[in-house]
This record gives sequence, C-alpha cells and structure tokens, in this order.
Amino acid sequence: MDLNADLGEGFGRWVLTDDVALLSIVTSANVACGFHAGDPATLRRVTALAAADGVRIGAQVSYRDLAGFGRREIEVPPEELAAEVAYQIGALRVFAQAAGSDVAYVKPHGALYHRAGRDPVQAAAVIEGVQLAGVDTLLTQRGSTLDLLATEAGLRVVGEAFADRAYLPDGHLVPRDLPGALLGLSEAVAQAVSLAADGVVTAIDGTLTTVAAETICVHGDGPDAVAVAALIRAALFERDINVEAFS
Amino acid sequence: MDLNADLGEGFGRWVLTDDVALLSIVTSANVACGFHAGDPATLRRVTALAAADGVRIGAQVSYRDLAGFGRREIEVPPEELAAEVAYQIGALRVFAQAAGSDVAYVKPHGALYHRAGRDPVQAAAVIEGVQLAGVDTLLTQRGSTLDLLATEAGLRVVGEAFADRAYLPDGHLVPRDLPGALLGLSEAVAQAVSLAADGVVTAIDGTLTTVAAETICVHGDGPDAVAVAALIRAALFERDINVEAFS
Amino acid sequence: MDLNADLGEGFGRWVLTDDVALLSIVTSANVACGFHAGDPATLRRVTALAAADGVRIGAQVSYRDLAGFGRREIEVPPEELAAEVAYQIGALRVFAQAAGSDVAYVKPHGALYHRAGRDPVQAAAVIEGVQLAGVDTLLTQRGSTLDLLATEAGLRVVGEAFADRAYLPDGHLVPRDLPGALLGLSEAVAQAVSLAADGVVTAIDGTLTTVAAETICVHGDGPDAVAVAALIRAALFERDINVEAFS
Amino acid sequence: MDLNADLGEGFGRWVLTDDVALLSIVTSANVACGFHAGDPATLRRVTALAAADGVRIGAQVSYRDLAGFGRREIEVPPEELAAEVAYQIGALRVFAQAAGSDVAYVKPHGALYHRAGRDPVQAAAVIEGVQLAGVDTLLTQRGSTLDLLATEAGLRVVGEAFADRAYLPDGHLVPRDLPGALLGLSEAVAQAVSLAADGVVTAIDGTLTTVAAETICVHGDGPDAVAVAALIRAALFERDINVEAFS
Repeated sequence: MDLNADLGEGFGRWVLTDDVALLSIVTSANVACGFHAGDPATLRRVTALAAADGVRIGAQVSYRDLAGFGRREIEVPPEELAAEVAYQIGALRVFAQAAGSDVAYVKPHGALYHRAGRDPVQAAAVIEGVQLAGVDTLLTQRGSTLDLLATEAGLRVVGEAFADRAYLPDGHLVPRDLPGALLGLSEAVAQAVSLAADGVVTAIDGTLTTVAAETICVHGDGPDAVAVAALIRAALFERDINVEAFS
Repeated sequence: MDLNADLGEGFGRWVLTDDVALLSIVTSANVACGFHAGDPATLRRVTALAAADGVRIGAQVSYRDLAGFGRREIEVPPEELAAEVAYQIGALRVFAQAAGSDVAYVKPHGALYHRAGRDPVQAAAVIEGVQLAGVDTLLTQRGSTLDLLATEAGLRVVGEAFADRAYLPDGHLVPRDLPGALLGLSEAVAQAVSLAADGVVTAIDGTLTTVAAETICVHGDGPDAVAVAALIRAALFERDINVEAFS
Repeated sequence: MDLNADLGEGFGRWVLTDDVALLSIVTSANVACGFHAGDPATLRRVTALAAADGVRIGAQVSYRDLAGFGRREIEVPPEELAAEVAYQIGALRVFAQAAGSDVAYVKPHGALYHRAGRDPVQAAAVIEGVQLAGVDTLLTQRGSTLDLLATEAGLRVVGEAFADRAYLPDGHLVPRDLPGALLGLSEAVAQAVSLAADGVVTAIDGTLTTVAAETICVHGDGPDAVAVAALIRAALFERDINVEAFS
Repeated sequence: MDLNADLGEGFGRWVLTDDVALLSIVTSANVACGFHAGDPATLRRVTALAAADGVRIGAQVSYRDLAGFGRREIEVPPEELAAEVAYQIGALRVFAQAAGSDVAYVKPHGALYHRAGRDPVQAAAVIEGVQLAGVDTLLTQRGSTLDLLATEAGLRVVGEAFADRAYLPDGHLVPRDLPGALLGLSEAVAQAVSLAADGVVTAIDGTLTTVAAETICVHGDGPDAVAVAALIRAALFERDINVEAFS
C-alpha cells in the first residue's frame, strides 16, 4: 500500500505542512504547484527533500485560487483548464528533474478533485493537461468520472482512499460539511488498516463497503497531521502490510 | 542575423502583441511565462504557432509582477529569484515540448533584464535558475554583468541589440525616460541594418559605436510594432543579410 | 433614460476601454474595482474623469479573477463573497470621494452578475456586501433573484437592459454562446430606442417583450464600443429622449 | 504609551497572527489590507474584534506582494504607489466603519516602511496616498524621511519604537540581518519599559540612546508573540505606565 500526502502547501511567509516530517512517513508526495499554494522556492525545497528520501513526486494541480486555497469550484473553460494543468506540471517538473527525480503522477487538488470527479468536461480538461505534459499516471478515486475517462484515455489510474474521511455505503465520501464526515485519530488508523488489509471500510451506516485503493491519503495540514500519518504507518507495519510507492 | 520579439504578452482577456503576425517576421520568440504576462492558454497557443513556423522559442522570464508588467525592480532574495526563473522555464517548456520544440534560450524581461545587467547578485540568481532548468543559452546585452557572469558560468550568451533604442557612445542604451531614447520608424530600420551589416550604431551624440550582436530585438507591443518589424526584415533582405535563428 | 458602461477595465500595462470617450457619452460609469480589472491608478484616473464630467460612479464588483476577467463563476462561500464585495466598494469609494463624488451604486460584473441573478445564496452575499459598505442602490436586471432579494432587503434597484444583447420572449437574455445572442450595430441602436421610448424589445422570436429598465448598458470593450455608444446616445437625442443619470 | 501590533496577517487558508489574543493586549491594531496579507473576510473579522475591544484601527499598507509578504522593496512609480496606498486604506475603512470605528492612522508595512523611511520619492507617494484617503495620522519612526516629509505635509506623525529590535547609538535600528538585531524576551520587555518610562534604549554598543516614541511595536507573528506582548503590557502596568491609544 502507498501512502500519499499533500506537501508544500505554504506560500511565501505562510507555512502549512510539516514537509520534512511527512516525507519520512509517506511514499508519494503530492506537491502543490503554485496555483492554490506553493511558491517556487518551496517547490524546489520539497522536491529536493522528496528525491533525497526516495519519495515519489506528484503534481498536485489546482484551480488558480490562492485566496480560496483551491477549495472554490471555478467554471474555467476547458481549454484554459487543460493549459493551467499542464503549466503547473511543467513548473514542478523542472525542480523534480533538477533533483534527479521526475513528476511521476498528477493529483488534482481540492475543488478540482471533486469537480473533475463528477464533471466530464473538466475531467477531460484535466486529462488533456496531463497528457499534454507527458505524464501517464493520475491519482484519484476509483469509480469517479475522472477515473473512467482517464482510463479510457489510456492513463494509468491509481485508486485513492482516505484514512480520515467517512464513507457512504455506496463508496463515496460523506460530504465534508455533514456530521461525521471527518474521522478521529483512532478511527482513521483503523480505516487505513482495513483499507490496506482487506480493501474495505465501515461506512457511516455501519455496513462494510469495498473501496479499491492502491494509495491512502493522509492529510498534511492540521495540528495532528504528522502524528496521524505516523500512527497509520506504524499500524500498517504492525500488520505486516508493506508501505511502498505504487508500482 | 537573428530577429527576436517579445510575444504572448497578454493575460486572459487582455491582448498586447499580434503574435501571429510577428511570428511570420522574427526568428526567435521570447514567450512571456506568466509572471509579467502570459496565461497558460496563451503560452500553449504561441508555442504551437512558433513551432509550426519554425521560430525558435525562448523563455521570457520576469519578476512576479502582473500589476507592473515586470517593469518594477524588485528586491527578490536570490534563492527565491532563482526558483522563480526555473519555475517559469519549466512551465513554458511543457508547451514547447508538446508542440515538438523546446525552450532554446532564456531572456529576462523588463526590470529583471536591466537589474541583472548590472547587479551580480540577481544576475547570479538568474543564471542559477537557468542552469537548474537545464537551459544552456541566455540572450542579453554584451558587456553586461549578466553576460560576464553567464559566460563565466559556462552558458552560451547571445548578444542582443535593439533596433528602436538610441545608444550612448559607450554602447549602453540611452535610458528610456531620457529624450531621444526611442527611435522613430526609419531610424529604427536604419539602425537594424547598420547593426546587422556592420555591427555598429550611430550613438546619440553622432559617433559610430560598435555593438556586438547576434540578435536584434524588435518590439512586439505598440500600434506600429508589426509594421516596424516587417520593414526591418525587408530592409535586411534587400541588403542580402540572412535572417535566421542564431546557431 | 440612463446609459451605463463598464469603465476602467484595464490592468497595469493592459488597456481595454476608451474611458475618456465613453465618459462623454454615458451618464453612469461602472468602474472596475481591481478584482477582475482595474489597478488603483486607473481607479483614481477614471473616478476623477467621471466626477469632472458629472458622470455618476458605480462600483463594478467582481469575483477575484484577473486571469478570467471575472467571467468564471466561482463557488465563493457567502461570508467571503460579502466581504469581497464590500472591500471593492471601499477601495473605489476612496477615489470617488477624493474626486468630490461618491460610489452611488453597485453593479456586479460578469459571472457574478449572472450567478447572483439566479442564486439566492450569492445574491444575498452581494446584498450583504453592499449594505456593509453603506451603499443603497444596486443596478441589475428586473425580475432576477438579485432584484427580488435586494428589493426585499430595502435596497433601491435600478433595472437594467442591454442594447446589444438579444432577448428571449420571457424577458431573459439569449445566452451569450447561442447564435443571435449579440446584436449588430443598427439593431443595438434600434433596441436602445425601443427600450427607452416604449419599454419593449423585439425578442429573438420576433415577439414584442416588455423590459422594464431605467438604465441601458452599452458595452465599453470591443473595437466599435465608442461608436455604438455614441450612435445610441444620438438616436435617443433625436427622439427627444432625455439621457440623464437615474434619479 | 501606546502598544501596536500587526494583525490580520493571514491570507485565506493561511493564518499567521493570533488576532484575538493580541487584541486583548495592544491599544492600536495595524490591520493588513490585502496587498501583503489580509483577505477581505479577515479584514472584516479583525476590525469587528478591534472595534468591540476598543482598540484603535490603523491601515497597514504595503507593496502589492503576497509572494514576498511585502518584504521585497519594489520600484513602484510614485503615482501608482500613492493610488495603491489609498486603495488599501479605502478597502479597510469600509470594514472599520461598518464596525462603528474608522481608520485612525496608517502604518506602512515591511519593505515599504523602510524604503519610505529613507527615500523621499516613495515617502511622498505614501503621504499623497494617505492624504488622498483623508487620513491625518501616520505611524513611523521619528527622524526618518517619512517622518520629516509627513510632518511638513501637515500630517500628525506618531513616533514608533520597537521592543524587540536592537538600536544603533544613532537611534536607527540594527539591520535585521546583522547579529544581535533581534532581542530576546527579557531584553524586549526591559527595552519596552525603558522606552516608556524614560524614552531611551540601551544601544547595541551599550550606550544610552534617546528614542522618541508614542507607541511601541510588539510583533504579532512568531511562536512567542502573544507571550512577549503580554509580558510587556504587564511590565508597563507594574511600573504604573498607562497603556492607552495615542491621543
């Protein structure tokens, strides 16, 4: 099982994620590319650290939205969105390559993740941008519109599950603003183990639900982010589940 | 002799340069990379046009300054400046490569051009960014600090002269805000011919001055930009001066 | 009848609207406030010109979206949108007051105009921002959600019609991307006269449709913007229709 | 003696200053206005809190520089700088007035503070912007170019000293990048008391130096910011020094 986290999500003076600590835990780093967070010096630093730690580097592409941290859905015309996605990948790649690594995959961030997960127009634009940039792997939820279209377009899709988000019985996430959407520490650890060991989660109504995932997202922001991520990694280790980057 | 122009200098709704017309005239296109101008969709369009026309693509890197169009000098710490330069090159490269071309050189824009031309700290930061991005050619004025340091660092420097800017007897440009700094149409054409044929200009005091140049900059903005550029190209043709990208 | 136009829609180096010419034609100026266009020096210049010409000043508030010129709908949380609206009004007001005038009304721009015209959440946020800033007048289309909620909230609403946009028989605009949505020059002039003289337009299906309007929007961008606006003003004058700011 | 701190210096998702805690300690709040930090919703929240706590509100105006947090000097043409200053004041004022207060003074931030402190062109532009916005009080260091020109222009200048910055024997600050520039906790408390009680500091060479100040700046960022500010306030209280907003 792969563990991924969003890294480099500061901007200039502002810091959000403990990149050094998280890079000792995760196997894939979704690095912010400057549109919702991530100034160039941070991109350089985080990619250098990731390369040194042998952590795979992914481009965490976003709507152009520093003020909203990429959490506001935007009606970007698809030809502009495709170009924005490619632009961000190219910007990150220069640092990844300078560090002796490369951009191995793309993961849309925040509102773009959710929008492309259900809207075929924006999903197609994301895919176009990814292919324009010559990347062949996309990290997203299995069963989403983005998954289906990306697979159809010949991209390799890595299915993602979330340790700390509650699931509906149909395998979708409980929307973030509903009660019970966010799991506590011990629940998140248990869900990560259950995902990695058995490919299932206990949905919010108590039913067992299959969630196909090759990577588990641990959140990088929040005061306990590092602790949660470390506990998840330790729990997987105890269960003899190998934590390594997806192949 | 090579002719270069700044292209893609709009942003979203705003258009500044007639990219299609200029690409039929120049042999090197300095494409804005998003920091002083240049939204991603424009980068994509201009690089595709340039590649189709066989025009060489350069990254026109700038301070982060949309509001000032990159014309305001900024005290960017060198490690941030180096990363900003590399970021822009990487972003443009993705489109250049998707179009079957590449970023062949880097030219600093506006205030960064002038600052790096005299300040060794910012010049070194620009060079670091260029090398980080794996580009080996820099377009700037011969004799400038940037020229000297870039040559020392092992970069190939392409010397640039300006068709429509008056020169001082020492080979420097007359500052833009002084009277006589900007040449009229026929003077600009004559200066381009004189630069290309003999490597000299008539300085503002009437003396002949040597200006070593492999490329002549024609300006892409302004109402007569295309006409001036076309007349310069025609005048060089009439004098049997080959116009082609620098080798 | 009042004539309004969007002014000051450049940003730094980029210019879009011929503010001087338009201010000699319209009676209300919707001045861009910096979020989709409008750098501070332009705000200052346009408000000074408007005040000198006796043209009423309105705040043309927008989503924060320079890259998309405010034409991309954005899911801004309402408490942020309200604050963004108030922020823009305050910024413009300082220049309007320095010129001896004031911000007399607010008109949402582009995607925000359309979104607030149908979405009660964003409409309420716009209204909250307007009231927070102490402005009492809103310029929008009669019958829209924004009109209804603003009226209910005690704001004075000035009904707006468009000279150069085709109408559906139900009084709504033909969406901009449909064929026939934009009227040609003579049609636009005729529609302005018909709106001002009789409060009706000939809808796209040929039926006469009532459109209640106290102000007619003439567009400030586009190559013929000034000519169209001048012809409309002249046509109204010929028909003895008084062109003056709404009371 | 007045105590001032920089507040509201987050942006969207990023938080820097503990505004609630600091507002219980300081008597003047320099609120970021959106150019180096400060989204509109934060401006609204901080001004409401300040007004409720009876803390005076000042506009902390900056260069347009989110990426550099306003710490990069920028060669802004003076007419643009004046307009940028006024723009920020106007934006903040709308929230201050909505909260029943007003913008009582202006304090330049970061690089603009230092540049206007020695450069008469930018100092004059700041003063022009302040006067354009109808504010009559400026907070800066006594003896600086900004102080002299502002006084000459008829503005009321409130002299500022710093609790946690070392001084040179001539009354200037030790530049931030030199050793000893930043004082530790107990030194900062002692310096605040000495400034308030006797109008002197012990300069970096050990000599007593007069520093005329009506307000002491306590820094709002940094992990110990609140603790330092609280200790300073307590130490002044113990010495029977009245802490209140400057008159």
